[in-house]
Amino acid sequence: MGSTSVGPGLDALPLRDDLRGRLPYGAPQIDVPVRLNTNENSYPLPEPAALAVVAALALEVRQLNRYPDREFTALRTALATYLGHDLTADQVWAANGSNEVLLHLFQAFGGPGRTALGFTPAYSMHPNIAATSATAWVDGLRGAPSGQFDLTAESAAEQVARHDPDLVMLCSPNNPTGTALGLDVVTAVYDATDRAVVVVDEAYAEFARTGTASALTLLPGRERLVVTRTMSKAFALAGARLGYLAADPAVCDALRLVRLPYHLSSLTQAAALAAVRHAPDLLGSVQVLREQRDRIVTELAGLGLAPVPSDANFVLFGGLADPVATWQALLEHGVLVRDVGIPGHLRVTAGNPDETSAFLTALTRVLEETP
Amino acid sequence: MGSTSVGPGLDALPLRDDLRGRLPYGAPQIDVPVRLNTNENSYPLPEPAALAVVAALALEVRQLNRYPDREFTALRTALATYLGHDLTADQVWAANGSNEVLLHLFQAFGGPGRTALGFTPAYSMHPNIAATSATAWVDGLRGAPSGQFDLTAESAAEQVARHDPDLVMLCSPNNPTGTALGLDVVTAVYDATDRAVVVVDEAYAEFARTGTASALTLLPGRERLVVTRTMSKAFALAGARLGYLAADPAVCDALRLVRLPYHLSSLTQAAALAAVRHAPDLLGSVQVLREQRDRIVTELAGLGLAPVPSDANFVLFGGLADPVATWQALLEHGVLVRDVGIPGHLRVTAGNPDETSAFLTALTRVLEETP
Repeated sequence: MGSTSVGPGLDALPLRDDLRGRLPYGAPQIDVPVRLNTNENSYPLPEPAALAVVAALALEVRQLNRYPDREFTALRTALATYLGHDLTADQVWAANGSNEVLLHLFQAFGGPGRTALGFTPAYSMHPNIAATSATAWVDGLRGAPSGQFDLTAESAAEQVARHDPDLVMLCSPNNPTGTALGLDVVTAVYDATDRAVVVVDEAYAEFARTGTASALTLLPGRERLVVTRTMSKAFALAGARLGYLAADPAVCDALRLVRLPYHLSSLTQAAALAAVRHAPDLLGSVQVLREQRDRIVTELAGLGLAPVPSDANFVLFGGLADPVATWQALLEHGVLVRDVGIPGHLRVTAGNPDETSAFLTALTRVLEETP
Repeated sequence: MGSTSVGPGLDALPLRDDLRGRLPYGAPQIDVPVRLNTNENSYPLPEPAALAVVAALALEVRQLNRYPDREFTALRTALATYLGHDLTADQVWAANGSNEVLLHLFQAFGGPGRTALGFTPAYSMHPNIAATSATAWVDGLRGAPSGQFDLTAESAAEQVARHDPDLVMLCSPNNPTGTALGLDVVTAVYDATDRAVVVVDEAYAEFARTGTASALTLLPGRERLVVTRTMSKAFALAGARLGYLAADPAVCDALRLVRLPYHLSSLTQAAALAAVRHAPDLLGSVQVLREQRDRIVTELAGLGLAPVPSDANFVLFGGLADPVATWQALLEHGVLVRDVGIPGHLRVTAGNPDETSAFLTALTRVLEETP
C-alpha cells in the first residue's frame, strides 16, 4: 500500500537504478473515527506510566545539549530484565523501531553479494530493508496442509537448505497473517544452515495465545539466532519508536559496527526506560485486546468469512470477493483497515471494544449491501 | 578514536567481510569535569525553551500509542522558515541526527558500484557511512598555499573531474579543521560534474565568522545540491538527535524511498519543533561560544601553537610534539579534548568561559611540564 506520491524531478536525479519506479512504503495516514490499519494499541499509556514518562523526559530536557549515552546501558539492562530467560544487558540491542534493528542486522550480515530468505506473505518491510541494504531477497513460500499461510518445519528447512541464504527472516506471530510459528520451525531452520543468521521477528509476541512459546527460550547455545521485539504494540509506544532484540553478545558487537553513533536519542532512551519499568501497568491492555481479537475471529466466521487464527493484535480474513471495494466501503463507514495485497483478504487491528464493534457493525452492513 | 571494545565470538559470526577488524566509531564517553571533545554546546536550553519542549513532550506522551506523522510536516515547515532563503517544507528533510540524513543520501544516491568523494581530513563519519551503505569511498586531498587544510576551487574541481564520483561530500565549516569553504569551491565542484549529488555538510554553520555565506544561497537552480544542518550544535540539542537538510523537492522524494517508515519519533518531532520555534532564545549561546573560540585561537597562538582559523565551535591546533601524551596529560587535569588522528594536532571544543579557562590553564601547565 505505498501511497505517498513521488513528485516530478526525481527522474533527473542520479537515483540508484534499483530504486527507480518504487513508491514510498507506508499505509495511508487518514483521519477517520476508527483507525484499525497499522496494528497500533488503541489504549494510551495509563496515567501512572504516562506521568513517569513525562517526568523522565523533563529530566532529560535539562541536559539535551549533551549527546546521549551511546551504549544506552540503562535501557538495555531494563529490557533484559523485562525479557527474562536470564538474559543480560550485553545480549540486548535497541534502535529507532524494530525496522532500524532489522536494518542494522541486514547491514552487518547482509549487503552486496548476500541473500536473505523470508516466507511470504510476511512483514513487508523485510524485503524493503533488504533492498535498502543492497541484500538480495528470496521470497520463500508458505502453505501447508494445516492452512494456506502456515509454515511447516520440513518446508522451511528444505527452502533454507535449497537457497543457502545469509539471513533468514521468520515472523512469529506472522504479520499479516497472525499465526505464531511452532518452535520446531525455528530449530529446523537453524539446523538447516550452519552459517546463516536466523531472525525471529516477535513484534506481536505479547498477544500470543496461551501456551505459545517464544524463540527467546531457544537462544542458549545458538549464537546465530536473533529474536526481535518492539515497544510499539503491546507497550502502546508506537510514537516513541523503540525496537530491540535479544541475541548472543557477539551479535550486538557486530551491530555496533554499523549503527550510527548516538542513534538512540536521550528522549527515546528515557521514555522507553520509564515505560519498561512500568511494564505490568502498560501491558494491562493486552488481555482486553486479545479478547477483542478472538471476538473478531469468532464473529467473522459467523459472517461466513475466513479469518486466519491469530496470536497477534490483528486478524487477517479471507472470503471477500472484492477486498478493494470492501476496504473503500468500510472507510466510508469511518473504519480504516488494511489491504495487504493478498487476494480476497483484508487485515483488521483488534481495537478496544467500541472500535471492534464499529468495525463489525460496518462490515456486516457492507456485506449486506454488496453480498 | 574507535575505542569501544569488541568482544570475542564475533569471528564466528557471518559478519560482512568488509566489516571484519573494524572498531565501533565513537569518542570515549569519559566522565570528567570539562568535556570539550565532541563539540557539544556547553549551555543547556534556556528556561523558556526548556519549558516549551517539556510541554510539547507531555502532550505527545498522551498519544504515544499512535505512530508519528510519517511526513513530520509541522517540523519540516518550521525548519524551512528557520532556514529562510524562501525555502518551503517540501525542500526540507530530517532524520535522527545528520548522520542519518547522510545515510539516507548514501542509500539513495550511493550504494554498490557507486563512489563518494570527500576531502580529507573532514568529518570522519562520511567514509564510515559510505562503508555502511556499500559505497566506494575516495579520499580526496586538502592542502593549498593558503593553509595545509584549505581546499581551493581549482583543486576540488580537478579532483571531482578526475574521480567522477556519484556523491561529493563537502564540509563547511570543515570538521575537524574548523574553516568554512568559500562558495566558489561549492560552485566549482557542482560545475565540475553534471551527475553527482553535491552535499555541503553545514553542521556548524551558525558559528561561522561574520561574512561567511551559506551554501543555502546556492540552492536555486541546482537540483543536485544538498545542504545538511543539525540541531546538535548551535541549537544545543545533541541529545534529541535531529539533523536536517535543504535541497530540491525531488531529493526529498528520493529519500522517501529509503527512509524507514516513521523514522522520526513523535517525541523527536515535538522536541525539535518546540526548539525551532524558540530559535532566537536557543541561539543565544552562539555569540559567547564564538568569542571563546576566538579566544582559544588567540591564546593558543600566544602559547606558540598553531591553531587553524575556525568558523565552528571548536579549534584544531597543531605544533604538538606528542599529541597522544598531551591528550592524556590534559585528561589528568580533568579536561577531555579530541585526538582526531592528525599528526601533531588536537581538537578542542569552545566551551563556556570557565571551561575554556580550565582548558587553557591546563594546557599551559602541560606544555610547561613537557616542553
